[in-house]
Amino acid sequence: MKTKIILDENEIPKKWYNIQADFETPLSPPMHPQTGKPVGPSDLEPIFPKELIRQEMCQDRYVDIPGEVRDILTLWRPSPLFRAHNLERVLKTPAKIYYKYEGVSPPGSHKPNTAIAQTYYNMKEGIERIATETGAGQWGSSLAFATQLFGLECKVYMVRGSYDQKPYRKMMMQVWGAECVPSPSPDTNSGRAILAKDPNTPGSLGIAISEAVEDAATHDNTNYALGSVLNHVCLHQTIIGQEAQKQLAMDEATADIVIGSAGGGSNFAGIAFPFVKDNIDKKTETEIIAVEPAACPSLTKGLYVYDFGDVAGLTPMLKMFTLGHDFIPPSIHAGGLRYHGMAPLVSKLHADNLITATSVHQNRVFEAAATFARAEGIIPAPEAAHAIRVVIDKALECKQTGEEKTILFNNTGHGHFDLSSYEAYFAGTLPDYEYPADLIAESLKNLPHVA
Amino acid sequence: MKTKIILDENEIPKKWYNIQADFETPLSPPMHPQTGKPVGPSDLEPIFPKELIRQEMCQDRYVDIPGEVRDILTLWRPSPLFRAHNLERVLKTPAKIYYKYEGVSPPGSHKPNTAIAQTYYNMKEGIERIATETGAGQWGSSLAFATQLFGLECKVYMVRGSYDQKPYRKMMMQVWGAECVPSPSPDTNSGRAILAKDPNTPGSLGIAISEAVEDAATHDNTNYALGSVLNHVCLHQTIIGQEAQKQLAMDEATADIVIGSAGGGSNFAGIAFPFVKDNIDKKTETEIIAVEPAACPSLTKGLYVYDFGDVAGLTPMLKMFTLGHDFIPPSIHAGGLRYHGMAPLVSKLHADNLITATSVHQNRVFEAAATFARAEGIIPAPEAAHAIRVVIDKALECKQTGEEKTILFNNTGHGHFDLSSYEAYFAGTLPDYEYPADLIAESLKNLPHVA
Repeated sequence: MKTKIILDENEIPKKWYNIQADFETPLSPPMHPQTGKPVGPSDLEPIFPKELIRQEMCQDRYVDIPGEVRDILTLWRPSPLFRAHNLERVLKTPAKIYYKYEGVSPPGSHKPNTAIAQTYYNMKEGIERIATETGAGQWGSSLAFATQLFGLECKVYMVRGSYDQKPYRKMMMQVWGAECVPSPSPDTNSGRAILAKDPNTPGSLGIAISEAVEDAATHDNTNYALGSVLNHVCLHQTIIGQEAQKQLAMDEATADIVIGSAGGGSNFAGIAFPFVKDNIDKKTETEIIAVEPAACPSLTKGLYVYDFGDVAGLTPMLKMFTLGHDFIPPSIHAGGLRYHGMAPLVSKLHADNLITATSVHQNRVFEAAATFARAEGIIPAPEAAHAIRVVIDKALECKQTGEEKTILFNNTGHGHFDLSSYEAYFAGTLPDYEYPADLIAESLKNLPHVA
Repeated sequence: MKTKIILDENEIPKKWYNIQADFETPLSPPMHPQTGKPVGPSDLEPIFPKELIRQEMCQDRYVDIPGEVRDILTLWRPSPLFRAHNLERVLKTPAKIYYKYEGVSPPGSHKPNTAIAQTYYNMKEGIERIATETGAGQWGSSLAFATQLFGLECKVYMVRGSYDQKPYRKMMMQVWGAECVPSPSPDTNSGRAILAKDPNTPGSLGIAISEAVEDAATHDNTNYALGSVLNHVCLHQTIIGQEAQKQLAMDEATADIVIGSAGGGSNFAGIAFPFVKDNIDKKTETEIIAVEPAACPSLTKGLYVYDFGDVAGLTPMLKMFTLGHDFIPPSIHAGGLRYHGMAPLVSKLHADNLITATSVHQNRVFEAAATFARAEGIIPAPEAAHAIRVVIDKALECKQTGEEKTILFNNTGHGHFDLSSYEAYFAGTLPDYEYPADLIAESLKNLPHVA
């Protein structure tokens, strides 16, 4: 009875799985923010490398993973699949609980799976510098890690509120040679304009995106990179689910339920898409559940319409479940899940009833996180703990029914830089934000018009 | 050309290696702090379980690892052995660099290897609660983790300076259900006495030890536990070196040089003892190097004499390399290496010329740490980076001579909670403490007398 199911490093997948190839109807294209018409590759070339634009629109079922990317992934991949024996024992459940653990990467989450790939393609096309934004810092530190390994420069615009509150993520970027500045910054027109109005603003992800995009557009040999939402980002994460399928088979198990947290959607895509494929292809009936915060419930309370990816409305419009691009979610501790929209690929699966979605409140999330940490040792990030909440609920249902279901979830990262939120939970001072119905209704009035 | 050499979890060693069995002359016994005569098992029974006392004095070459201990070790063991291809490339060295990575444990260091074992034996002998001290918090969090898994209570006296400066370690202990209080505390006579004199004292490891020992001696069903120095602690860490030997063999490599950082001595013991054994047994000629901070150079500048383990002189006297029990090392960032003495087993190896020792300054340690983090991704703890400094120096020597030596070191843990010290290094504000010759000379005047 194993605890860890380990794959040899030559079993890192050789191809990413592209779920677009398995859709019955095509994905709605991104629309130009000014013209309202479909975006072509040339519209994106000022800020993205050609190969990533190709992958964004690609209809092939598989995309080869370059050898140089796989070589770097060996630093932490394949990631382990754990059987959560101790958690099962604590819950007294007949369910079998497995989790893929992405916290073994040096930045501590699944984000470097795509940061490495994106940096590689930028490097191949002669780009010498990448600009990006980051909220809580998971993505910024992952891109800093990746650009360091490939010898590119990196500039990270970090939302000022997080920059001040989470200094460790900023220091991590510095160790990996990136320049990290609080956003809004005096380094861009967008930043200067906002600072002129309010020198003490805490910033927002929308502002930081504007700064990073402007930086990329106005510097030589500089591109922009995004850590979630887009098709190519979801594509790069599918190695998680592919590895998990191999590892479950090694333990002679098949998943009855697959659960992932969902913010922008990329980690959920990573664990879920290969199982969606089997449901389509092999007629398996795996239940696939996306878990989002009650404070930011795009899949469960949003509309499936075209909306901007950023607050300022500079990005292409994407057809997705959205709470409105100017909805600012309450300050829950799972900063990685505070996004108004959901990846178009994940949104389409939900619209097509190929997955289900549910939302959970903050205190029940931390209760699950503490239960998990005390049973399994690993202290999960609050983002990952959203999935864990539903895993525990499902396992307790099995206890009631006596069903021996096999549950798989993606443990996206460790909570080493989130311990102050655990402290707040134990102190009983963590608010449970209600579903912000009024704010969402207000924001949904401001959806853009599409031609 | 692999990056990680991974052992299956059923290859976790089944026995700890006891180097006492291979000494030509016996280890000098611990002496009673009052009588100055050898300590017997019954002297230790008020605070340690019988089996650990037996292991402390055991002369058998191998000690069986209980199945329940091995089961829990599977949560993170066997730990990976990495080939540092990227670091070799950056250094342009013909040397082959391997490192064992102990940062994969949930508390993030090698300390739980012994915390799990110690807690298990306490549990088996009916103990329901363990008291301990911790400095920077690595040991306290490891014991919290272990006691949580076995259902024991845990109280940690954490040096107040660290308690205030490193709140994340304290929060980690809380997540794992331990009670962590700043020391000196109002909970013990020793603590109250010191607080009465100076309510604002930052505390010291010596004070915290006194509190934990007093706690264990005055509470029902409570024992005391120590995270380094003692023979049984070194014994439990030998799984590191045993695994590394198997993993090197899988990569068809043999170590020419083995390097470990040395504070109390337990991680060094863990990586080095199995290689010392081969040097004795199989006449191999592996060079084995202990690396200590220039600010706390017990092996390179201390005397090999009997001294107390704590500042207050409450513990048995141990024959060891010591800087004097009332020597307070400068506040270097490698808090885990700030101990006045060295494990008696490691001390004897040094006295018998079976290992060598060297010391390094703080800024060169962080320079090596940053080089390593930028090449290999993993951000090492400052303690681990002491070994890395000497690894890089040896690899650069190989570049000069053209020798293709194989170098192995123990990367004892990650630096996620040490990022502020990296920031200080990059800011150029990190002091390089000189070898504190005057302080040490003063302290060495106060050595105890042994009968």
